[in-house]
Amino acid sequence: MMMFDNTYSLSRFLPIIDWLKTYQRQDFADDLFAGIITAILLVPQGIAYSILAGLPPQLGLYASILPPIMYALLGTSRTLSVGPVSIAAIMIASALTAPAVAALGNPVQSAIVLSLESGIIMLLMAVLRMGGLVNFISHPVLTGFTSGAALLIIGSQLPQTLGLKTPSCGIDIACYTTYLQGFNSTTLLLSIGALALLLLFSQLLPTLLKKMGVKPVIITAVSKCGPLLTVVLTTIVVSLLLNEGQSIAVVGVVPAGFPELSMNVMTDSLGQRGKLLLPYAAFIALIAYVESVAIAKVTANLRSEKIIPNQELIGLGVANIAAALSGGMPVAGGFSRTMVNFSAGARTQMAMLIAAVLLAVAVMFCSPWFTNIPKAALAVIILVAITPLVKLKTILHTWAYDRGDGIAEAVTLLGVLVLGIEEGIMLGIMLTIASHLRKASQPHIAVVGRVPDTEHYRNIKRHHVETWHHLLLIRIDESLTFANINYIEEFLVTELKRQPDTKHIVLIFTSVSDIDTTALDALESLNQALQAAGKTLNISEAKGPVLDKLHKTDFLRQLTGQVFFRTEDAVKQLGVTGIQ
Amino acid sequence: MMMFDNTYSLSRFLPIIDWLKTYQRQDFADDLFAGIITAILLVPQGIAYSILAGLPPQLGLYASILPPIMYALLGTSRTLSVGPVSIAAIMIASALTAPAVAALGNPVQSAIVLSLESGIIMLLMAVLRMGGLVNFISHPVLTGFTSGAALLIIGSQLPQTLGLKTPSCGIDIACYTTYLQGFNSTTLLLSIGALALLLLFSQLLPTLLKKMGVKPVIITAVSKCGPLLTVVLTTIVVSLLLNEGQSIAVVGVVPAGFPELSMNVMTDSLGQRGKLLLPYAAFIALIAYVESVAIAKVTANLRSEKIIPNQELIGLGVANIAAALSGGMPVAGGFSRTMVNFSAGARTQMAMLIAAVLLAVAVMFCSPWFTNIPKAALAVIILVAITPLVKLKTILHTWAYDRGDGIAEAVTLLGVLVLGIEEGIMLGIMLTIASHLRKASQPHIAVVGRVPDTEHYRNIKRHHVETWHHLLLIRIDESLTFANINYIEEFLVTELKRQPDTKHIVLIFTSVSDIDTTALDALESLNQALQAAGKTLNISEAKGPVLDKLHKTDFLRQLTGQVFFRTEDAVKQLGVTGIQ
Repeated sequence: MMMFDNTYSLSRFLPIIDWLKTYQRQDFADDLFAGIITAILLVPQGIAYSILAGLPPQLGLYASILPPIMYALLGTSRTLSVGPVSIAAIMIASALTAPAVAALGNPVQSAIVLSLESGIIMLLMAVLRMGGLVNFISHPVLTGFTSGAALLIIGSQLPQTLGLKTPSCGIDIACYTTYLQGFNSTTLLLSIGALALLLLFSQLLPTLLKKMGVKPVIITAVSKCGPLLTVVLTTIVVSLLLNEGQSIAVVGVVPAGFPELSMNVMTDSLGQRGKLLLPYAAFIALIAYVESVAIAKVTANLRSEKIIPNQELIGLGVANIAAALSGGMPVAGGFSRTMVNFSAGARTQMAMLIAAVLLAVAVMFCSPWFTNIPKAALAVIILVAITPLVKLKTILHTWAYDRGDGIAEAVTLLGVLVLGIEEGIMLGIMLTIASHLRKASQPHIAVVGRVPDTEHYRNIKRHHVETWHHLLLIRIDESLTFANINYIEEFLVTELKRQPDTKHIVLIFTSVSDIDTTALDALESLNQALQAAGKTLNISEAKGPVLDKLHKTDFLRQLTGQVFFRTEDAVKQLGVTGIQ
Repeated sequence: MMMFDNTYSLSRFLPIIDWLKTYQRQDFADDLFAGIITAILLVPQGIAYSILAGLPPQLGLYASILPPIMYALLGTSRTLSVGPVSIAAIMIASALTAPAVAALGNPVQSAIVLSLESGIIMLLMAVLRMGGLVNFISHPVLTGFTSGAALLIIGSQLPQTLGLKTPSCGIDIACYTTYLQGFNSTTLLLSIGALALLLLFSQLLPTLLKKMGVKPVIITAVSKCGPLLTVVLTTIVVSLLLNEGQSIAVVGVVPAGFPELSMNVMTDSLGQRGKLLLPYAAFIALIAYVESVAIAKVTANLRSEKIIPNQELIGLGVANIAAALSGGMPVAGGFSRTMVNFSAGARTQMAMLIAAVLLAVAVMFCSPWFTNIPKAALAVIILVAITPLVKLKTILHTWAYDRGDGIAEAVTLLGVLVLGIEEGIMLGIMLTIASHLRKASQPHIAVVGRVPDTEHYRNIKRHHVETWHHLLLIRIDESLTFANINYIEEFLVTELKRQPDTKHIVLIFTSVSDIDTTALDALESLNQALQAAGKTLNISEAKGPVLDKLHKTDFLRQLTGQVFFRTEDAVKQLGVTGIQ
């Protein structure tokens, strides 16, 4: 028993123990297969997202080795694939191109500082038990943000497929005509070929194989090889074209092996670079955490596993610090990769450990083969992966379901496109909180009466109920706080104006679990005002903790009326019977 | 009837019509008396608060004429005394001494721009119906802010009573010794004399007169003359001392008559000055509005009158614009002055109209008498008025009643003292919202069972109730939103782990008035997860609007279980009877 307890508490810190205890041979067979498939996807993704972030390709590869290993030890999701992701990549690009950051030079060092800082921020959030922060980003805001960021990524990748650089035309339409004329026809053909190959593997081939009765597992495996095969084939073609003297943008030399585990990033984080990058790191940490937990929950729900948000902060935080120490870009859980891993049959994080080992082998021995990978093919891979994330229709659905949420989604999307990534998400969060406070400021309140021949009290607007002369029964359906007490006060004043003969007011506190200081002050002056007007204020059905709290103050002593246990008691004592 | 309707709708825009319609001769007698008393207080306050803000004395006097007249026409409080106030004065001082603002020179112009901008901000808030913004500042934050600002004012006025300038010693203790040695003994004597006079009138004399059986109204009148008498007597003494060649800091020349109504402030607001001052104006508008409404409510409650927050924004907004156009500093409702006006018997804003006329007469004909008013006497008047606003003990009371509110109050106070006025209030507001969201993220949820022989369902932790095998009844006591849905999900997962045999979950929606998009998404994936685990999700007692909203989506169609009108129906159908 003692032993069990120890293991239990240790597994809280190292969730890997949970599944290692019962790990079976069949699990390993499943994980091995899924690990290989995920690794096949990770190589092109790692290189592509690195370039998307404006970094040399190896930063994405390094980020695919140590970080998923650390997450496997510490994270609570069994199938989340941690590594470079597209949304984080565009956020890194946004940070690196900010004028003050760009002026510092050395974007590689900046990216590594971002990894370190976002990791530390996540750990701090874990220590302060701020996993609940995920609440501050509602789904509509997250969807709007993701769509906006995906559109920005598409905007950045489309020129690559034409062999063009990012345009600098602003709103000058004529300029775009000249700009587009500079496109490279070989690159365009290459892009079309890559797109055809990808669609063949992801759409056509699975349908075909399914009709042929091939096992689903094999279909999954084949369809997920599309990106790697595309890269291999286009690289071969490009190598031949380059030999013929054609000019096509390629990845370039990727250094073989690993950088030394670097500690100087620590000292650099404390200087000017660290200070400038801190706000960007905070946004990356927030989004990386929120998106990862959302993805982890999807797969966990499908297998009745449980995600512990605070432990996720630790797992992702340490993974990002590991990224920094091994010279990688910031990491998060990737949606498409996790779904691939899951549908390839991964049982546990062993799959990701296997993928990490394969990536390490690739970095050590295959880097010469990466040099001639065409950027256009990577852009096409990104475009195919990112397009489903643009969900413009959901804005209409959200709007139809909840107008406020629809506005928040649209504003966040537009904010990201027009103002920028960080500004957009900030705007969305502020809107959500403001709308939440507005709703919270209008609590449900009802004037109630007694359902005849019972002791039940119901809204006089909805039920035929008995009421009494001189007696006003008011049920407040929420805790009394600074946010809603003004509304409640207004409601009471209005009701008293409508029923000027009222002598006794009974506030029914069935649903009141707390009264904060602002609300208490308001109740005190209400009590005073009623006293001045010769009326009494009474309370019924107050919960124990609420009464305990009120007993600490003078309020109950100065109360003009009484505290009743049941509303029925109040009515018996204060209601003038016979008059309805 | 038509006539009445017209008057009614007009009186919404001009609340003055409300009381003018029934204005009586006796009302005028009361208002005349109160107006004279308030004017007697306004002259020294206007000059003192101007100087406190770092401005020439006339800006406070001008702010005491046109602004209260506009408020009398448009405001909903019958006794609020609008004019220069101490808290706004220290906020103006904070704006004017900010390096970027100070660098522009011409503090008078800056102060007038602040009046204009805060007036426009208030009107904008009125148009956008943001009167509810007052909710964002809880009482503890307001109290903490007021105490902090009052301490800053005390710190700025104490040196004046010793004839010293503001020290610039920082934390160098030795420096303070040298600094204090520079005090002026004549000024100190003058200050002690002024203090004695003030206390005589405010404390000793009323007690004495009361014992002698003098009418309360006379006592009020006499006691409120203290400040003016103090100013008159010390000015006479100082005039004599100045003739003898002594050097004592005095107010200096106050120009006679009025400045021309100035429009150039409008253009200046659009330039660099206006831009720099805008955030300060926003804070002044917010605090001026919140404090004014709080004060207006105190007196309105005592006479069962009603304050309309949005109309207050219009009244105060126009008053501030009037201040700008007549060359005055920003205005708000003053606590001490309003209480003086009220206790002197003011029935309506006619009292303030009378006071404004008296002030205009004073500015036209008495300004030569203001030259030799000693600054020390004004400092003593401010100190006596401001000291009661420092409420350090309430922090302990607040802490004892509600820990979170106590922290917010203390942090706001310290924030104002250490970080600055604007930073302090911002910190307090953010803390309040964060703590509100934290509380909102933990809604009340209960597993319920049936009270035997009834159809009532109660918390199984608090009541002896029937429960059923395979059936989990869960009552959620709040609307489902992005803020709390994670907590609810966690709760369900934990309960399911504790009762793994559960086959049917019934969510009781009695208290659920809304389900936002984030919560709907969570319910959908919960439904999916339960389906995967062979369990059903059911809903009971959902309100009409909630069901209407859900019917717009696929949720109800994909629901694994059913929607029951009453929990009783769900139990009859899903509960395995006989097993308890």
